[in-house]
Amino acid sequence: MSSFTQTLDAAWQRTGSLLCVGLDPEPAKFPAAFAGRADAIFAFCRDIVDATAPYACAFKPQIAYFAAFRAEDQLEQLIAHIHARHPGLPVILDAKRGDIGSTAEQYAREAFDRYRADAVTVNPYMGFDSIEPYLEHAGKGVIVLCRTSNPGGSDLQFLETGGKPLYQVVAQLAAQKWNASGELGLVVGATFPKEIETVRGIVGEMPLLIPGIGAQGGDVEATVRAGRNAAGTGMLINSSRAIIYAGKGDDFAAAAARAAEDTRDRINAFR
Amino acid sequence: MSSFTQTLDAAWQRTGSLLCVGLDPEPAKFPAAFAGRADAIFAFCRDIVDATAPYACAFKPQIAYFAAFRAEDQLEQLIAHIHARHPGLPVILDAKRGDIGSTAEQYAREAFDRYRADAVTVNPYMGFDSIEPYLEHAGKGVIVLCRTSNPGGSDLQFLETGGKPLYQVVAQLAAQKWNASGELGLVVGATFPKEIETVRGIVGEMPLLIPGIGAQGGDVEATVRAGRNAAGTGMLINSSRAIIYAGKGDDFAAAAARAAEDTRDRINAFR
Repeated sequence: MSSFTQTLDAAWQRTGSLLCVGLDPEPAKFPAAFAGRADAIFAFCRDIVDATAPYACAFKPQIAYFAAFRAEDQLEQLIAHIHARHPGLPVILDAKRGDIGSTAEQYAREAFDRYRADAVTVNPYMGFDSIEPYLEHAGKGVIVLCRTSNPGGSDLQFLETGGKPLYQVVAQLAAQKWNASGELGLVVGATFPKEIETVRGIVGEMPLLIPGIGAQGGDVEATVRAGRNAAGTGMLINSSRAIIYAGKGDDFAAAAARAAEDTRDRINAFR
Repeated sequence: MSSFTQTLDAAWQRTGSLLCVGLDPEPAKFPAAFAGRADAIFAFCRDIVDATAPYACAFKPQIAYFAAFRAEDQLEQLIAHIHARHPGLPVILDAKRGDIGSTAEQYAREAFDRYRADAVTVNPYMGFDSIEPYLEHAGKGVIVLCRTSNPGGSDLQFLETGGKPLYQVVAQLAAQKWNASGELGLVVGATFPKEIETVRGIVGEMPLLIPGIGAQGGDVEATVRAGRNAAGTGMLINSSRAIIYAGKGDDFAAAAARAAEDTRDRINAFR
């Protein structure tokens, strides 16, 4: 079986897309046809996945939305659907876990054994032994928060330590010390293109997961120019709400497909 | 209804205990009588809770252990059981969540609306807007990671920024800027008693959740002397594995009760 980075490289080549479609299901925003369905979250996300798959290189379900609605079973079903119907498109479980080693082992089981995700996002605040248990799952990807897209991201990540901001220390640790498996990536928000460029300079070819170009307002051109690697890839540029809620009526899936295609094309215009 | 800090203060007074019993259920470590039971995780934890409640001021289920075993429903059941049978003992959901505001809203719903926890642990790496949505749940506690008990905790938390280590900056932010609700607490590991003392100096009377005295090897005397507040309380000293797996046979609940009583007494000897 291919590793996460191999699958991702192949997906970038095959699809010609750098777009990662984020799945943040909120039943209150679903079209009326889903009202009252016990499997509404699965069914809505499945329709979005099937409609947008031709324009995406990956999918990123955000586990908080499933957990808030007691829909863990629907998340399992959804990821199984993606693997079955869209093989070769990696699934990144956005969970941002971070805990001591013995607990991290359980979170790794949750992400990889239970949900069968190809990669998971993790938080670096507790250091390397909070990340190591994920690396022991051979071939699985681990995407470490570095410079996040939210306003409060600066509260800690921009503090100077040893002459540089904390997020750069995280990028260095990830690239130089923590990446024994070769399956690490970093989260760097599209709301900070200059910092994407700095991180790219530190980490070489490492994949960057870049949220924030849609509802959060990041600039596509600046993001692509800052984040691409030598091959013109190296980025999973994520959009969630701007794609999955592009339409509100019965044509929601077609509207999501158009939004995904358009976003892919806007990204590709600057590669 | 009382807020988290009011409930906790009352529990400290009424129980005379600073011990928080951590619930990290691993079916492979359960006594043989639980083998094959579909509700083994709930039943084991319920027995531990009922046996140790006389010696505890709070319970702390670690959600990773439930999630790895597809046992979210058993976690709901367990917390409902604690509220019903042991009213006045707060439940801290150990989840260490951290995400952008819109996602944090979902995690807050998960912790407080779904699981009915009195407090939740959160990660500060993404800054204040990743913590704010939890504070909007009136009366609920939010316990921010500060100085964690694991070896890798030093990788980031001990980096110097502005002349002091990062964990002290987090303690200052929590005490001086983030605690509008008055319901904030901090996690400080028992493996670093000097740093508990420093944090206590920064945060005044704020509750400290202190893991690490059991399996992780922290020193009880040093922890209590460093962490107590002016009233001789202010601490939730957590022990998980050393209590819940104190016995392996049919007497596991009685063994857990003895371990809890002994731990409570060892703590109280130094208050």
